[in-house]
Amino acid sequence: MRSEFDFINNLKSKYSLGLIGDDCAVLPKNGKTDLVVTADLLVEDIDFRLDWTTPEFLGHKALAVSLSDIAAMGASPVWAMLSIGVPENVWKTDFIDRFYEGWFTLAKEFDVELVGGDVSRTPEKIVIDSIGGGEVAKGKAILRSGAKPGDSIFVTGKLGGAAGGLMLLETGFRYADSSECRRQMIAKQLRPVPQITSGKYLLNNGIATAMIDLSDGLSSDLHHLCRASGVGARINVQDIPILPALSDINVAKDQMLAMAIHGGEDFELLFTANEKNLSVPNLPAVQRIGEITENVGTIEIVNGKEISSLPSRGYRHF
Amino acid sequence: MRSEFDFINNLKSKYSLGLIGDDCAVLPKNGKTDLVVTADLLVEDIDFRLDWTTPEFLGHKALAVSLSDIAAMGASPVWAMLSIGVPENVWKTDFIDRFYEGWFTLAKEFDVELVGGDVSRTPEKIVIDSIGGGEVAKGKAILRSGAKPGDSIFVTGKLGGAAGGLMLLETGFRYADSSECRRQMIAKQLRPVPQITSGKYLLNNGIATAMIDLSDGLSSDLHHLCRASGVGARINVQDIPILPALSDINVAKDQMLAMAIHGGEDFELLFTANEKNLSVPNLPAVQRIGEITENVGTIEIVNGKEISSLPSRGYRHF
Repeated sequence: MRSEFDFINNLKSKYSLGLIGDDCAVLPKNGKTDLVVTADLLVEDIDFRLDWTTPEFLGHKALAVSLSDIAAMGASPVWAMLSIGVPENVWKTDFIDRFYEGWFTLAKEFDVELVGGDVSRTPEKIVIDSIGGGEVAKGKAILRSGAKPGDSIFVTGKLGGAAGGLMLLETGFRYADSSECRRQMIAKQLRPVPQITSGKYLLNNGIATAMIDLSDGLSSDLHHLCRASGVGARINVQDIPILPALSDINVAKDQMLAMAIHGGEDFELLFTANEKNLSVPNLPAVQRIGEITENVGTIEIVNGKEISSLPSRGYRHF
Repeated sequence: MRSEFDFINNLKSKYSLGLIGDDCAVLPKNGKTDLVVTADLLVEDIDFRLDWTTPEFLGHKALAVSLSDIAAMGASPVWAMLSIGVPENVWKTDFIDRFYEGWFTLAKEFDVELVGGDVSRTPEKIVIDSIGGGEVAKGKAILRSGAKPGDSIFVTGKLGGAAGGLMLLETGFRYADSSECRRQMIAKQLRPVPQITSGKYLLNNGIATAMIDLSDGLSSDLHHLCRASGVGARINVQDIPILPALSDINVAKDQMLAMAIHGGEDFELLFTANEKNLSVPNLPAVQRIGEITENVGTIEIVNGKEISSLPSRGYRHF
């Protein structure tokens, strides 16, 4: 069965779509500024489960996923639209009021204005489409396609937390009655923090040559970035920054690593830069994990003396 | 139960949202131009039924509803995003390819570029969120709020066709094997034509003082326009332009009128203008249906010597 990525690539070539395929589309705004826009669909029982989250967390996450796409361009969020469909039994509760509470709490933090959207009824499940609009200095948006062989590969923070949170939720743990460590992981999954400040810092200081947010998972997202840049990559197992809280879950070390590499939704930024060491006080958690190679389309993973090929095992819908 | 309109009005006041409530949000673009943006959610078995339509018609309609919102501002469409979620059994068919065929055929007509969106899996039903972006001369977008007492009220075309089409579909008629007359009505319902050219003409010639597209139905949409303008309205039964094809359906004259007044999705434009007669070759079907009054919040309907109050009976989700 074709994946959604194959389908989108096919659409791009069939209809000559030049602006599709990055975290946001970049459109001209005025002489100094470009507009960036993005849309993210969240579907009940595919992307979230009502018994795992709270309406406030879900409202937060709906906006956060789009802000994360804007962060991945190095842009500043400005406005948003929200389309939401709920079944009648949910409409009759306080769900939607609490959902918007969560949405607006995050929106206020980044000064994002709700300018439109749609409210609709659905037969059974909740669906949310989150649309974000942002601004970036003209021609400066950080694309997926700018990585060059020799560039170093970095991530802005520890990985695997969202996968850990998912595992906890699947095994019956809930945010409200969990320990501090487990709450940290569940929060990574249910209430992700968009890396707007890091994205803007990387752009303003001319550091990142290419960037993508870690939504599908490091292995998939690095493949996306490499494909867009026409390069390959080599990453080092011992450099992958695993969220320490993960050790609180009873899983083998190999599985923890797999969760950090293939687990999605950490919403950290993955970027490349033309320098070996990146030590900036503003980005304390930045970690170099490998380098870009000329080995087009191949991602190698180095574990001691072993080098193997890293398949793209992140989240896919189809 | 509160309606979605009450909910949105409450949201506007609770969070001080100044840009919500028109067909599109108007955002500054540059010194000469404003950006308009809109989003419309279409949900299977609420807004469409797969056994009533074709994938191509549905793709057309998904874009058309957003283009209609852009038309209602007097703006020109420029770009669009599309979020679509489908269940796996639909993904495996040619549905999505044919859906995009229909979408792109309409997009080409108005030179609209697809710049982004999302493709997702759903548990069971198809959901579509259509996002449109357009441009309009700075400060010139035609809002719902500009109607003044004494203005005349016009519609750009005949009404009731989409309601007739819906009735035909509900009683088992399908586009492919219907007569010319019935096809016309079914097409109004499944493959609406956005009134972009009329909207732009009304703006460029400084004719319209307020405008809205007829999506929920004349009675609802006129209420929306009056509420935004802080005015009332009086319309005349004998001036409501009923689509002639409606007489092909075996319904009483009263019911035909009700379909024209309360039936949604005709996607004609409803606008006000500061002139009694509007006869322009470019808008051959424009019809004056009444006038704006000072009777805030009340819409009167005149039938011979009888004047009654017109309730808002158009489509609502809740």
